[in-house]
Amino acid sequence: MTGTARQKYVEVDGTSMTGRFPVSFELEGYSSGKRRNDVKVGMIEPERLRVWDLASDEGKFHGGDETAPKPLALFTAGIVTCFMTQLRTFARQCGVSVSGLNTHAKFEWYAQRDGQEPYVAHPNRFVLDIEFETEASLEAQKRLVRVAAKACFAEQILSIDLVHRLKHGGEWVICEVE
Amino acid sequence: MTGTARQKYVEVDGTSMTGRFPVSFELEGYSSGKRRNDVKVGMIEPERLRVWDLASDEGKFHGGDETAPKPLALFTAGIVTCFMTQLRTFARQCGVSVSGLNTHAKFEWYAQRDGQEPYVAHPNRFVLDIEFETEASLEAQKRLVRVAAKACFAEQILSIDLVHRLKHGGEWVICEVE
Repeated sequence: MTGTARQKYVEVDGTSMTGRFPVSFELEGYSSGKRRNDVKVGMIEPERLRVWDLASDEGKFHGGDETAPKPLALFTAGIVTCFMTQLRTFARQCGVSVSGLNTHAKFEWYAQRDGQEPYVAHPNRFVLDIEFETEASLEAQKRLVRVAAKACFAEQILSIDLVHRLKHGGEWVICEVE
Repeated sequence: MTGTARQKYVEVDGTSMTGRFPVSFELEGYSSGKRRNDVKVGMIEPERLRVWDLASDEGKFHGGDETAPKPLALFTAGIVTCFMTQLRTFARQCGVSVSGLNTHAKFEWYAQRDGQEPYVAHPNRFVLDIEFETEASLEAQKRLVRVAAKACFAEQILSIDLVHRLKHGGEWVICEVE
């Protein structure tokens, strides 16, 4: 999390401000089944890319038909793939030649119900494990993880401490990203 | 955002603690193309549901082949659909009979580059517009939005102020969710 959260928004047009470019997405959603939602989503800045059709649904015990992934499957896959993309984007600059990249993640919440009131969602523990196929040093890999964490648009708007662990020499090494 | 962010995690087993149940997801990802990532993702608590195959890719100007949605398309669709699901889950309890639900969202970030250093991502402005097909009062709809915001597992781990607007009588009404 950066100190910029909750600051007032700024106008960014991608050309006039040195070193700054906008990244924005637009979505249109509608409820299309018992618990199913359909969404059209596309990037609009810095470049308009094609619009994708995505959908969510719930399992039967939440009143859905399981015709599509759950919303949190999309959400968590977005975090993991955004981070993986940044790892590859900045690998060369950090001196890490990557011939393969595998991740494993576990994201845990709990819901708290007070009597008959609607439940309130709480974040709990979020761990992202990273395995590079690389000959690069542990220090170079750690630097790459730090750089990717700061460049990751998803991670940068999370209020939780995402724990990053690197596989090195058969051990899991926790990376500090602040 | 709740005050629980960054607290130490708690052990939640779904049965022993009154009113509390765990919600967790597990993911396995690998880099499968120039910028493409493939992910298997499934809910493991409170119930193991089927595992879904999701993928991300980038547009050509980011070195990808655009074979799948961008990571932030998955991520933002996850936020919007999680929120929509909560709206429907708690609609009846809030006295809002919903015959239709449409949303529109715009999520804006910017990236800041300092010389040749890797860019750093910053959140900017996040707006979620909600239109119910309902005869319910504005007050009831506002209550439902507040309840859904607190129950939304995605929104509850965002560090940004997500602006919620309700369409009512042809106007957009901003809802306070704190």
